[in-house]
Amino acid sequence: MDLKLHNFFRSSTSTRVRAALNIKGLPFEYVPYVLRDGETRTPEYLGRNRQGLVPTLERGDGVNLTQSLAIIEWLEEVRPEPALLPKDIDDRAWVRSLAYMVACEIHPLNNLRVLFRLRDQFGADEEAQKKWFTHWVILTFDAFEAELVGAGQSGTCCLGDTPTLADICLYAQVWNNKRFGIPVETWPAIERIFKHLDAIPAFADAAPPKQPDAAQAQPDRRVT
Amino acid sequence: MDLKLHNFFRSSTSTRVRAALNIKGLPFEYVPYVLRDGETRTPEYLGRNRQGLVPTLERGDGVNLTQSLAIIEWLEEVRPEPALLPKDIDDRAWVRSLAYMVACEIHPLNNLRVLFRLRDQFGADEEAQKKWFTHWVILTFDAFEAELVGAGQSGTCCLGDTPTLADICLYAQVWNNKRFGIPVETWPAIERIFKHLDAIPAFADAAPPKQPDAAQAQPDRRVT
Repeated sequence: MDLKLHNFFRSSTSTRVRAALNIKGLPFEYVPYVLRDGETRTPEYLGRNRQGLVPTLERGDGVNLTQSLAIIEWLEEVRPEPALLPKDIDDRAWVRSLAYMVACEIHPLNNLRVLFRLRDQFGADEEAQKKWFTHWVILTFDAFEAELVGAGQSGTCCLGDTPTLADICLYAQVWNNKRFGIPVETWPAIERIFKHLDAIPAFADAAPPKQPDAAQAQPDRRVT
Repeated sequence: MDLKLHNFFRSSTSTRVRAALNIKGLPFEYVPYVLRDGETRTPEYLGRNRQGLVPTLERGDGVNLTQSLAIIEWLEEVRPEPALLPKDIDDRAWVRSLAYMVACEIHPLNNLRVLFRLRDQFGADEEAQKKWFTHWVILTFDAFEAELVGAGQSGTCCLGDTPTLADICLYAQVWNNKRFGIPVETWPAIERIFKHLDAIPAFADAAPPKQPDAAQAQPDRRVT
Protein backbone atom coordinates (compact mmCIF):
# COMPACT_ATOMS: atom_id res chain seq x y z
CA MET A 1 0.00 0.00 0.00
CA ASP A 2 1.14 3.48 -0.88
CA LEU A 3 0.36 5.57 2.21
CA LYS A 4 1.03 9.14 3.29
CA LEU A 5 0.30 10.19 6.85
CA HIS A 6 -0.53 13.88 7.21
CA ASN A 7 0.15 14.50 10.87
CA PHE A 8 1.96 16.33 13.65
CA PHE A 9 4.43 14.83 16.08
CA ARG A 10 2.76 16.09 19.28
CA SER A 11 -0.76 15.15 18.17
CA SER A 12 -2.04 12.26 20.23
CA THR A 13 -4.41 11.05 17.52
CA SER A 14 -1.45 11.06 15.11
CA THR A 15 0.54 8.95 17.57
CA ARG A 16 -2.29 6.41 17.58
CA VAL A 17 -2.25 6.00 13.81
CA ARG A 18 1.56 5.88 13.64
CA ALA A 19 1.56 3.06 16.20
CA ALA A 20 -1.17 1.16 14.33
CA LEU A 21 0.69 1.47 11.01
CA ASN A 22 3.90 0.30 12.67
CA ILE A 23 2.20 -2.70 14.28
CA LYS A 24 0.67 -3.65 10.93
CA GLY A 25 4.11 -3.32 9.36
CA LEU A 26 2.90 -0.76 6.83
CA PRO A 27 5.48 1.84 5.79
CA PHE A 28 4.21 5.36 5.19
CA GLU A 29 5.47 8.74 4.05
CA TYR A 30 5.51 11.22 6.92
CA VAL A 31 3.99 14.61 6.03
CA PRO A 32 4.27 17.06 8.94
CA TYR A 33 2.04 20.04 9.71
CA VAL A 34 2.47 22.78 12.29
CA LEU A 35 -0.99 23.13 13.86
CA ARG A 36 -0.15 26.36 15.64
CA ASP A 37 0.77 27.99 12.32
CA GLY A 38 -2.57 27.07 10.74
CA GLU A 39 -1.02 24.67 8.23
CA THR A 40 -4.10 22.42 8.45
CA ARG A 41 -6.42 25.31 7.62
CA THR A 42 -5.25 25.76 4.02
CA PRO A 43 -7.71 25.06 1.18
CA GLU A 44 -5.48 22.22 0.04
CA TYR A 45 -5.53 20.49 3.42
CA LEU A 46 -9.24 21.18 3.98
CA GLY A 47 -9.80 19.35 0.69
CA ARG A 48 -8.36 16.25 2.36
CA ASN A 49 -9.92 16.75 5.75
CA ARG A 50 -12.89 19.10 6.07
CA GLN A 51 -12.37 19.45 9.82
CA GLY A 52 -8.83 20.72 9.31
CA LEU A 53 -7.60 18.18 11.84
CA VAL A 54 -4.74 15.71 11.87
CA PRO A 55 -4.23 12.90 11.13
CA THR A 56 -5.31 12.17 7.56
CA LEU A 57 -4.18 8.97 5.90
CA GLU A 58 -3.84 9.50 2.16
CA ARG A 59 -3.92 6.37 0.04
CA GLY A 60 -2.24 5.87 -3.30
CA ASP A 61 -5.64 5.91 -5.02
CA GLY A 62 -6.22 9.47 -3.77
CA VAL A 63 -8.72 8.59 -1.04
CA ASN A 64 -8.16 10.46 2.21
CA LEU A 65 -9.17 8.72 5.43
CA THR A 66 -9.92 10.84 8.49
CA GLN A 67 -10.60 10.38 12.22
CA SER A 68 -7.91 8.28 13.89
CA LEU A 69 -10.24 5.55 15.18
CA ALA A 70 -11.89 5.15 11.78
CA ILE A 71 -8.45 4.90 10.17
CA ILE A 72 -7.40 2.21 12.66
CA GLU A 73 -10.62 0.19 12.20
CA TRP A 74 -10.03 0.44 8.44
CA LEU A 75 -6.44 -0.80 8.84
CA GLU A 76 -7.75 -3.69 10.91
CA GLU A 77 -10.14 -4.65 8.11
CA VAL A 78 -7.70 -4.43 5.21
CA ARG A 79 -4.73 -5.86 7.11
CA PRO A 80 -6.18 -8.14 9.83
CA GLU A 81 -2.83 -9.38 11.17
CA PRO A 82 -1.32 -8.63 13.59
CA ALA A 83 -4.77 -8.00 15.03
CA LEU A 84 -5.50 -4.82 17.01
CA LEU A 85 -8.79 -6.23 18.27
CA PRO A 86 -9.09 -9.61 20.00
CA LYS A 87 -11.02 -12.45 18.36
CA ASP A 88 -13.51 -12.95 21.20
CA ILE A 89 -16.56 -10.70 20.82
CA ASP A 90 -16.79 -9.87 24.53
CA ASP A 91 -13.09 -9.07 24.63
CA ARG A 92 -13.53 -6.78 21.63
CA ALA A 93 -16.29 -4.88 23.42
CA TRP A 94 -14.07 -4.47 26.47
CA VAL A 95 -11.06 -3.32 24.47
CA ARG A 96 -13.18 -0.83 22.54
CA SER A 97 -14.70 0.49 25.78
CA LEU A 98 -11.21 1.17 27.15
CA ALA A 99 -10.15 2.83 23.91
CA TYR A 100 -13.23 5.08 23.91
CA MET A 101 -12.61 6.04 27.55
CA VAL A 102 -9.51 7.79 26.29
CA ALA A 103 -10.79 8.80 22.86
CA CYS A 104 -14.19 10.12 23.97
CA GLU A 105 -13.60 11.27 27.55
CA ILE A 106 -10.06 12.64 27.75
CA HIS A 107 -8.55 13.61 24.44
CA PRO A 108 -11.49 15.65 23.05
CA LEU A 109 -11.40 17.87 26.13
CA ASN A 110 -7.69 18.43 26.10
CA ASN A 111 -6.53 19.07 22.59
CA LEU A 112 -5.02 22.28 21.35
CA ARG A 113 -8.15 23.88 19.95
CA VAL A 114 -9.99 23.33 23.23
CA LEU A 115 -7.18 24.96 25.21
CA PHE A 116 -7.26 27.87 22.75
CA ARG A 117 -11.01 28.16 23.28
CA LEU A 118 -10.63 28.19 27.07
CA ARG A 119 -8.12 31.00 26.70
CA ASP A 120 -10.30 32.97 24.29
CA GLN A 121 -13.68 32.50 25.97
CA PHE A 122 -12.68 32.38 29.65
CA GLY A 123 -9.23 33.96 29.69
CA ALA A 124 -7.71 30.70 30.92
CA ASP A 125 -3.98 31.14 31.49
CA GLU A 126 -1.42 28.34 31.43
CA GLU A 127 -2.14 27.38 35.03
CA ALA A 128 -5.91 27.20 34.47
CA GLN A 129 -5.38 25.15 31.32
CA LYS A 130 -3.18 22.74 33.23
CA LYS A 131 -5.84 22.41 35.93
CA TRP A 132 -8.49 21.68 33.28
CA PHE A 133 -6.30 19.18 31.42
CA THR A 134 -5.30 17.40 34.62
CA HIS A 135 -8.88 17.22 35.89
CA TRP A 136 -10.06 15.18 32.90
CA VAL A 137 -7.03 12.93 32.86
CA ILE A 138 -7.38 12.04 36.55
CA LEU A 139 -11.12 11.47 36.31
CA THR A 140 -10.81 8.93 33.52
CA PHE A 141 -7.40 7.42 34.32
CA ASP A 142 -8.67 6.60 37.83
CA ALA A 143 -11.56 4.68 36.26
CA PHE A 144 -9.29 3.13 33.61
CA GLU A 145 -6.86 1.92 36.28
CA ALA A 146 -9.72 0.52 38.40
CA GLU A 147 -11.10 -1.28 35.37
CA LEU A 148 -7.70 -2.79 34.49
CA VAL A 149 -7.23 -4.03 38.06
CA GLY A 150 -10.86 -5.01 38.67
CA ALA A 151 -11.37 -6.94 35.45
CA GLY A 152 -8.23 -8.99 36.09
CA GLN A 153 -7.65 -9.55 32.38
CA SER A 154 -4.47 -7.54 31.96
CA GLY A 155 -1.00 -8.93 31.44
CA THR A 156 1.80 -6.88 30.01
CA CYS A 157 -0.90 -5.15 27.92
CA CYS A 158 -4.44 -3.99 28.72
CA LEU A 159 -5.83 -7.37 27.65
CA GLY A 160 -3.38 -10.18 28.18
CA ASP A 161 -0.02 -9.77 26.50
CA THR A 162 -1.02 -8.61 23.02
CA PRO A 163 -1.27 -4.90 22.19
CA THR A 164 -4.72 -3.76 21.07
CA LEU A 165 -6.57 -0.58 20.20
CA ALA A 166 -6.84 0.09 23.95
CA ASP A 167 -3.05 0.08 24.33
CA ILE A 168 -2.68 2.36 21.33
CA CYS A 169 -5.03 4.97 22.79
CA LEU A 170 -3.51 4.63 26.26
CA TYR A 171 0.06 4.94 25.01
CA ALA A 172 -0.71 8.10 23.04
CA GLN A 173 -2.53 9.66 26.00
CA VAL A 174 0.32 9.01 28.44
CA TRP A 175 2.62 10.87 26.05
CA ASN A 176 0.12 13.70 25.88
CA ASN A 177 -0.02 13.86 29.69
CA LYS A 178 3.74 14.41 29.82
CA ARG A 179 3.21 17.85 28.30
CA PHE A 180 1.43 18.91 31.45
CA GLY A 181 3.72 17.02 33.77
CA ILE A 182 1.19 14.40 34.86
CA PRO A 183 3.24 11.47 36.20
CA VAL A 184 2.19 8.04 34.92
CA GLU A 185 3.40 6.61 38.25
CA THR A 186 0.09 7.76 39.76
CA TRP A 187 -1.52 4.67 38.20
CA PRO A 188 0.58 1.51 38.72
CA ALA A 189 -1.20 -0.73 36.20
CA ILE A 190 -1.16 1.99 33.54
CA GLU A 191 2.49 2.69 34.33
CA ARG A 192 3.41 -0.98 33.96
CA ILE A 193 1.63 -1.26 30.62
CA PHE A 194 3.04 2.02 29.31
CA LYS A 195 6.60 0.96 30.12
CA HIS A 196 6.06 -2.37 28.41
CA LEU A 197 4.64 -0.70 25.29
CA ASP A 198 7.42 1.88 25.25
CA ALA A 199 9.93 -0.96 24.88
CA ILE A 200 8.18 -2.28 21.74
CA PRO A 201 9.64 -0.65 18.61
CA ALA A 202 6.22 -0.25 16.90
CA PHE A 203 5.11 1.94 19.80
CA ALA A 204 8.40 3.63 20.62
CA ASP A 205 8.90 4.61 16.98
CA ALA A 206 5.47 6.29 17.05
CA ALA A 207 6.27 8.42 20.10
CA PRO A 208 6.27 12.20 19.61
CA PRO A 209 10.00 12.88 20.26
CA LYS A 210 11.04 10.35 17.62
CA GLN A 211 9.26 12.07 14.73
CA PRO A 212 11.09 14.06 12.06
CA ASP A 213 9.23 17.30 12.86
CA ALA A 214 10.10 17.06 16.57
CA ALA A 215 13.68 18.16 16.04
CA GLN A 216 12.85 21.46 14.32
CA ALA A 217 9.86 22.22 16.53
CA GLN A 218 9.60 25.33 18.63
CA PRO A 219 9.58 24.78 22.38
CA ASP A 220 6.25 23.56 23.71
CA ARG A 221 4.88 26.90 24.82
CA ARG A 222 1.40 25.58 25.31
CA VAL A 223 -1.40 28.04 24.74
CA THR A 224 -0.34 31.40 26.05
CA MET B 1 -31.33 -11.73 24.78
CA ASP B 2 -32.20 -10.48 28.24
CA LEU B 3 -31.09 -6.84 28.25
CA LYS B 4 -31.40 -3.95 30.68
CA LEU B 5 -30.42 -0.46 29.59
CA HIS B 6 -29.26 1.75 32.45
CA ASN B 7 -29.70 5.21 31.00
CA PHE B 8 -31.23 8.69 31.11
CA PHE B 9 -33.69 10.13 28.65
CA ARG B 10 -31.77 13.35 27.89
CA SER B 11 -28.41 11.60 27.53
CA SER B 12 -27.28 11.67 23.93
CA THR B 13 -25.16 8.52 24.28
CA SER B 14 -28.23 6.78 25.74
CA THR B 15 -30.28 7.86 22.73
CA ARG B 16 -27.66 6.27 20.46
CA VAL B 17 -27.93 2.89 22.18
CA ARG B 18 -31.73 3.01 22.35
CA ALA B 19 -31.86 3.63 18.59
CA ALA B 20 -29.38 0.80 17.89
CA LEU B 21 -31.37 -1.66 20.04
CA ASN B 22 -34.59 -0.63 18.31
CA ILE B 23 -33.08 -1.03 14.84
CA LYS B 24 -31.80 -4.48 15.79
CA GLY B 25 -35.25 -5.34 17.09
CA LEU B 26 -33.94 -6.16 20.55
CA PRO B 27 -36.33 -5.43 23.41
CA PHE B 28 -34.80 -4.13 26.63
CA GLU B 29 -35.81 -3.15 30.13
CA TYR B 30 -35.50 0.60 30.65
CA VAL B 31 -33.76 1.54 33.92
CA PRO B 32 -33.70 5.33 34.38
CA TYR B 33 -31.18 7.40 36.36
CA VAL B 34 -31.24 11.07 37.27
CA LEU B 35 -27.70 12.26 36.55
CA ARG B 36 -28.15 15.56 38.34
CA ASP B 37 -29.10 13.76 41.55
CA GLY B 38 -25.93 11.65 41.49
CA GLU B 39 -27.78 8.39 40.91
CA THR B 40 -24.92 7.09 38.75
CA ARG B 41 -22.39 7.75 41.52
CA THR B 42 -23.70 5.09 43.92
CA PRO B 43 -21.45 2.12 44.77
CA GLU B 44 -23.96 -0.19 43.10
CA TYR B 45 -23.88 1.71 39.80
CA LEU B 46 -20.12 2.23 39.91
CA GLY B 47 -19.88 -1.57 40.15
CA ARG B 48 -21.48 -1.70 36.71
CA ASN B 49 -19.74 1.27 35.21
CA ARG B 50 -16.58 2.55 36.85
CA GLN B 51 -16.89 5.92 35.13
CA GLY B 52 -20.32 6.49 36.64
CA LEU B 53 -21.63 7.34 33.19
CA VAL B 54 -24.69 6.28 31.24
CA PRO B 55 -25.49 4.19 29.33
CA THR B 56 -24.63 0.71 30.59
CA LEU B 57 -26.11 -2.31 28.87
CA GLU B 58 -26.57 -5.14 31.36
CA ARG B 59 -26.86 -8.60 29.90
CA GLY B 60 -28.74 -11.52 31.38
CA ASP B 61 -25.43 -13.23 32.19
CA GLY B 62 -24.49 -10.32 34.45
CA VAL B 63 -21.95 -8.71 32.13
CA ASN B 64 -22.19 -4.92 31.95
CA LEU B 65 -21.19 -3.26 28.69
CA THR B 66 -20.12 0.37 28.77
CA GLN B 67 -19.31 3.18 26.32
CA SER B 68 -22.07 3.69 23.77
CA LEU B 69 -19.94 3.10 20.67
CA ALA B 70 -18.49 -0.11 22.12
CA ILE B 71 -22.01 -1.30 22.93
CA ILE B 72 -23.17 -0.58 19.38
CA GLU B 73 -20.16 -2.31 17.80
CA TRP B 74 -20.90 -5.29 20.08
CA LEU B 75 -24.56 -5.31 18.99
CA GLU B 76 -23.41 -5.23 15.38
CA GLU B 77 -21.24 -8.30 15.98
CA VAL B 78 -23.79 -10.41 17.86
CA ARG B 79 -26.79 -9.34 15.76
CA PRO B 80 -25.42 -8.42 12.32
CA GLU B 81 -28.80 -7.68 10.71
CA PRO B 82 -30.12 -5.12 10.08
CA ALA B 83 -26.57 -3.86 9.66
CA LEU B 84 -25.47 -0.56 11.21
CA LEU B 85 -22.26 -0.54 9.20
CA PRO B 86 -22.17 -0.95 5.41
CA LYS B 87 -20.58 -4.01 3.82
CA ASP B 88 -18.01 -2.13 1.75
CA ILE B 89 -14.79 -1.48 3.71
CA ASP B 90 -14.31 2.05 2.36
CA ASP B 91 -17.93 2.89 3.15
CA ARG B 92 -17.43 1.56 6.67
CA ALA B 93 -14.44 3.85 7.18
CA TRP B 94 -16.46 6.82 5.96
CA VAL B 95 -19.46 6.02 8.15
CA ARG B 96 -17.22 5.57 11.19
CA SER B 97 -15.44 8.86 10.46
CA LEU B 98 -18.80 10.68 10.44
CA ALA B 99 -19.87 8.95 13.65
CA TYR B 100 -16.61 9.91 15.38
CA MET B 101 -16.95 13.52 14.24
CA VAL B 102 -19.96 13.68 16.54
CA ALA B 103 -18.76 11.24 19.19
CA CYS B 104 -15.20 12.58 19.53
CA GLU B 105 -15.52 16.26 18.57
CA ILE B 106 -18.92 17.46 19.79
CA HIS B 107 -20.50 15.35 22.47
CA PRO B 108 -17.47 15.03 24.80
CA LEU B 109 -17.22 18.81 24.98
CA ASN B 110 -20.86 19.41 25.64
CA ASN B 111 -22.13 16.91 28.15
CA LEU B 112 -23.41 17.73 31.60
CA ARG B 113 -20.22 17.16 33.55
CA VAL B 114 -18.28 19.46 31.21
CA LEU B 115 -20.83 22.23 31.63
CA PHE B 116 -20.62 21.74 35.42
CA ARG B 117 -16.85 22.01 35.19
CA LEU B 118 -17.04 25.24 33.16
CA ARG B 119 -19.32 26.65 35.84
CA ASP B 120 -17.09 25.50 38.70
CA GLN B 121 -13.70 26.37 37.23
CA PHE B 122 -14.52 29.46 35.19
CA GLY B 123 -17.82 30.64 36.65
CA ALA B 124 -19.55 30.07 33.31
CA ASP B 125 -23.19 31.10 33.55
CA GLU B 126 -25.98 29.76 31.36
CA GLU B 127 -25.18 32.20 28.56
CA ALA B 128 -21.48 31.31 28.54
CA GLN B 129 -22.32 27.61 28.55
CA LYS B 130 -24.63 28.10 25.60
CA LYS B 131 -21.89 29.95 23.73
CA TRP B 132 -19.44 27.11 24.44
CA PHE B 133 -21.93 24.40 23.45
CA THR B 134 -22.92 26.20 20.27
CA HIS B 135 -19.31 26.86 19.25
CA TRP B 136 -18.45 23.15 19.11
CA VAL B 137 -21.67 22.16 17.39
CA ILE B 138 -21.22 24.75 14.64
CA LEU B 139 -17.56 23.91 14.10
CA THR B 140 -18.22 20.23 13.50
CA PHE B 141 -21.71 20.38 11.97
CA ASP B 142 -20.35 22.78 9.32
CA ALA B 143 -17.72 20.17 8.41
CA PHE B 144 -20.22 17.31 8.66
CA GLU B 145 -22.62 19.11 6.31
CA ALA B 146 -19.79 19.88 3.86
CA GLU B 147 -18.72 16.24 3.92
CA LEU B 148 -22.28 14.99 3.30
CA VAL B 149 -22.67 17.35 0.35
CA GLY B 150 -19.13 17.02 -0.97
CA ALA B 151 -18.94 13.24 -0.88
CA GLY B 152 -22.20 12.94 -2.80
CA GLN B 153 -23.01 9.58 -1.21
CA SER B 154 -26.03 10.58 0.84
CA GLY B 155 -29.63 9.72 0.12
CA THR B 156 -32.31 9.87 2.75
CA CYS B 157 -29.57 8.82 5.21
CA CYS B 158 -25.90 9.80 5.58
CA LEU B 159 -24.86 6.96 3.26
CA GLY B 160 -27.54 6.10 0.75
CA ASP B 161 -30.90 5.21 2.17
CA THR B 162 -29.98 2.83 4.98
CA PRO B 163 -29.45 4.10 8.53
CA THR B 164 -25.97 3.49 9.93
CA LEU B 165 -23.89 4.32 12.98
CA ALA B 166 -23.39 7.80 11.48
CA ASP B 167 -27.15 8.44 11.45
CA ILE B 168 -27.46 7.18 15.02
CA CYS B 169 -24.82 9.62 16.29
CA LEU B 170 -26.20 12.46 14.19
CA TYR B 171 -29.80 11.89 15.29
CA ALA B 172 -28.85 11.89 18.98
CA GLN B 173 -26.75 15.04 18.58
CA VAL B 174 -29.53 16.99 16.86
CA TRP B 175 -31.78 16.19 19.82
CA ASN B 176 -29.05 17.36 22.17
CA ASN B 177 -28.72 20.60 20.21
CA LYS B 178 -32.40 21.35 20.78
CA ARG B 179 -31.66 21.87 24.48
CA PHE B 180 -29.64 24.94 23.57
CA GLY B 181 -31.98 26.07 20.82
CA ILE B 182 -29.63 25.35 17.92
CA PRO B 183 -31.85 25.04 14.84
CA VAL B 184 -31.16 22.06 12.60
CA GLU B 185 -32.33 24.17 9.65
CA THR B 186 -28.87 25.77 9.63
CA TRP B 187 -27.61 22.66 7.82
CA PRO B 188 -29.96 21.57 5.00
CA ALA B 189 -28.49 18.11 4.41
CA ILE B 190 -28.42 17.34 8.13
CA GLU B 191 -31.96 18.69 8.47
CA ARG B 192 -33.21 16.51 5.62
CA ILE B 193 -31.62 13.38 7.13
CA PHE B 194 -32.80 14.18 10.65
CA LYS B 195 -36.40 14.59 9.49
CA HIS B 196 -36.23 11.32 7.60
CA LEU B 197 -34.82 9.47 10.63
CA ASP B 198 -37.36 11.08 12.94
CA ALA B 199 -40.12 9.46 10.89
CA ILE B 200 -38.64 5.97 11.40
CA PRO B 201 -40.10 4.33 14.55
CA ALA B 202 -36.75 2.83 15.65
CA PHE B 203 -35.31 6.36 15.86
CA ALA B 204 -38.41 8.24 16.98
CA ASP B 205 -38.98 5.77 19.81
CA ALA B 206 -35.42 6.42 21.02
CA ALA B 207 -35.90 10.20 21.18
CA PRO B 208 -35.60 11.81 24.62
CA PRO B 209 -39.22 13.05 25.01
CA LYS B 210 -40.60 9.56 24.36
CA GLN B 211 -38.82 7.92 27.29
CA PRO B 212 -40.59 6.91 30.52
CA ASP B 213 -38.42 9.17 32.70
CA ALA B 214 -39.14 12.22 30.53
CA ALA B 215 -42.65 12.67 31.91
CA GLN B 216 -41.61 12.96 35.55
CA ALA B 217 -38.45 14.95 34.84
CA GLN B 218 -37.83 18.35 36.31
CA PRO B 219 -37.67 21.22 33.83
CA ASP B 220 -34.39 21.39 31.93
CA ARG B 221 -32.69 23.99 34.07
CA ARG B 222 -29.31 23.38 32.54
CA VAL B 223 -26.32 24.01 34.76
CA THR B 224 -27.00 27.03 36.90
